[in-house]
Amino acid sequence: MLNFTVGPVQSSDAVRVIGGENVPYFRTAEFSEVMLENERLMLKFVGAPERSRVVFITGSGTASMEAVVMNLLTPEDRALVVNGGSFGARFCKICEVHGVPHDEIRLELGKALTRENLTTETTDKGGCNPQKSSVNSGPSVVDQKYTAFLVNKHETSTGVHYDMELIADFCRKNNLLLIVDNISSFLCDEFDMATLGADVMITGSQKALACPPGVSIIVLSPRALARVAAKDPKCMYFDLKDALKNQERGQTPFTPAVGTLLQIHARLKEIEAAGGVASEVAKTKSLAEYFRSKIKDLPLEIVSESLSNAVTPLRPTNGMSANDIFLKLKDEHGIWVCPNGGELKNKVFRVGHMGNLTTEDYDKLVAALRRVMHY
Amino acid sequence: MLNFTVGPVQSSDAVRVIGGENVPYFRTAEFSEVMLENERLMLKFVGAPERSRVVFITGSGTASMEAVVMNLLTPEDRALVVNGGSFGARFCKICEVHGVPHDEIRLELGKALTRENLTTETTDKGGCNPQKSSVNSGPSVVDQKYTAFLVNKHETSTGVHYDMELIADFCRKNNLLLIVDNISSFLCDEFDMATLGADVMITGSQKALACPPGVSIIVLSPRALARVAAKDPKCMYFDLKDALKNQERGQTPFTPAVGTLLQIHARLKEIEAAGGVASEVAKTKSLAEYFRSKIKDLPLEIVSESLSNAVTPLRPTNGMSANDIFLKLKDEHGIWVCPNGGELKNKVFRVGHMGNLTTEDYDKLVAALRRVMHY
Repeated sequence: MLNFTVGPVQSSDAVRVIGGENVPYFRTAEFSEVMLENERLMLKFVGAPERSRVVFITGSGTASMEAVVMNLLTPEDRALVVNGGSFGARFCKICEVHGVPHDEIRLELGKALTRENLTTETTDKGGCNPQKSSVNSGPSVVDQKYTAFLVNKHETSTGVHYDMELIADFCRKNNLLLIVDNISSFLCDEFDMATLGADVMITGSQKALACPPGVSIIVLSPRALARVAAKDPKCMYFDLKDALKNQERGQTPFTPAVGTLLQIHARLKEIEAAGGVASEVAKTKSLAEYFRSKIKDLPLEIVSESLSNAVTPLRPTNGMSANDIFLKLKDEHGIWVCPNGGELKNKVFRVGHMGNLTTEDYDKLVAALRRVMHY
Repeated sequence: MLNFTVGPVQSSDAVRVIGGENVPYFRTAEFSEVMLENERLMLKFVGAPERSRVVFITGSGTASMEAVVMNLLTPEDRALVVNGGSFGARFCKICEVHGVPHDEIRLELGKALTRENLTTETTDKGGCNPQKSSVNSGPSVVDQKYTAFLVNKHETSTGVHYDMELIADFCRKNNLLLIVDNISSFLCDEFDMATLGADVMITGSQKALACPPGVSIIVLSPRALARVAAKDPKCMYFDLKDALKNQERGQTPFTPAVGTLLQIHARLKEIEAAGGVASEVAKTKSLAEYFRSKIKDLPLEIVSESLSNAVTPLRPTNGMSANDIFLKLKDEHGIWVCPNGGELKNKVFRVGHMGNLTTEDYDKLVAALRRVMHY
């Protein structure tokens, strides 16, 4: 099978070789060294500010999104959440579950975030009041003082990549803690924590890190670390203080997905050797552009106003069901693209550009799409 | 390296081959079938009562221990917890974090659970009152009505295997929900949920399932399922209702450790083909007995009163530090045994009998032990 989904994606040979080996025992100096280097490389690759730290969670990206809310936010906070699809809705739901007051910036599917969505007046207390917006997409509550901003940099469900400079500027002006789900955008689009003033960034093992799923990663700025230090979350497994303390010596409180962490290590070293994040982003961008250039004449509309290099969200314009295209590519051509769920199931499918893929792979995909769409 | 730890352990060829492949996309009918078969085989292998269900958690065994407490117990419950080592203490801590009233049956390290530890008077309300015990090991609170019993069937930290018939009898008489951490005992020692009347059993991918770590498994009886249905846990990631609903169609709410779940599938099929749980238990037992017979003349004392087939906990009686033996075996002989932490660090190390091991492997270990211990 040829895999163009948004995760799990295809791994490099070096990563797969490790997967084929017995998993080593891990309460050792050898494994600690691997974990400390994993932390060092992650800090470097996200441009983290000095004295930032990293924790590795055995769990999905959602596990880390929830761990961040549980460890950094309290009922005394008020969060502003960009909700432009399933993952934005997930951040809202997590805030709700944990009693964190929040308002949504609800965006229509496929729409970019604009300056108008962030119309606010700053307050003398360092928080901000969003003005009642005349459009539906703005926060609807007036006179609320926000303390945190939560955003999925790339809303993977619809393939919308938000303008992080706009968001960073807004957060800086209003002194908001900036929490970034960077799960599907890490290594695909530019991102620099220090430049943006971001406090948290989250990613997962099975996106552009191109390792098996099972591990998610949280990078915490000094400001985020101070929040973690001040709070006791009501969960042992997601206690980031405990995770940070263990990671000081390259360990974890509980048995982690040791094999996947070794694969992440190999992959981070591979990226470093190949020129770092910039060349990884350039590679992904060139694959995305190659694919997009090859489907110009097909009855497929790109439905996002603001694309990430990670994925191309497509709507068939010839009346075919998006899910049927997914199934036909899988069953008749040995190719996985990424289906959508819910209301988008029959309308949109996605083609990913993460993982071990080449232009030849895209030629095969485009040829198969032509056959499936009779075009 | 030759691995005799208690996890991760050595995998079969079939399991390792899957680890070396690209991880497939999983929102498919094909992956759903695998997951439904995983559920069916797990139910069979633990002798679950009819209408039991299984959930697969991407996380360590502790994640599942905590998920069970969060989803089944409330502040209106009162739990009785066997605390004979690190994992018993962990159950207590989890109850504490989640505000579940509980008392401990504290056992000295290495000691078996006896009928005297369970001295109680049953009450007319179906709960039970433990009598104030004259020894330190009994629950110290009188006039408490318990509703649940939590036990690590095999306290892995000290290698003590508790008498489950004694516990089951006690729970039946007092109408207690019986929650069993079976993490390191599953497939190593006999266990039958229906016979024992156990309501929950937990295991992990990296013990006798001999797959990479990263997945834990919870089996829930109808009585446990009714508790799950009645409670909303304050955690999205550990919401078992959501996990159960998704597992009805062989899926998970969030991206799981797909690769490890495929490896678990291969391993469960392998066990089924080789004669099922009974022959797996027999194989482990025979390896444990082989090893124990070979070290009779070595200055090593078995420190558990009640052994599991999973592991042999050993105390050097020649004055050597247990941790030094662990390090020497690792650095000079390419062998991992399992060190202990905390107060046992220099006193006890453990030799595991789980995973892909042979009598020849144990011959190598015994020869290396002789050299390290100069015996």
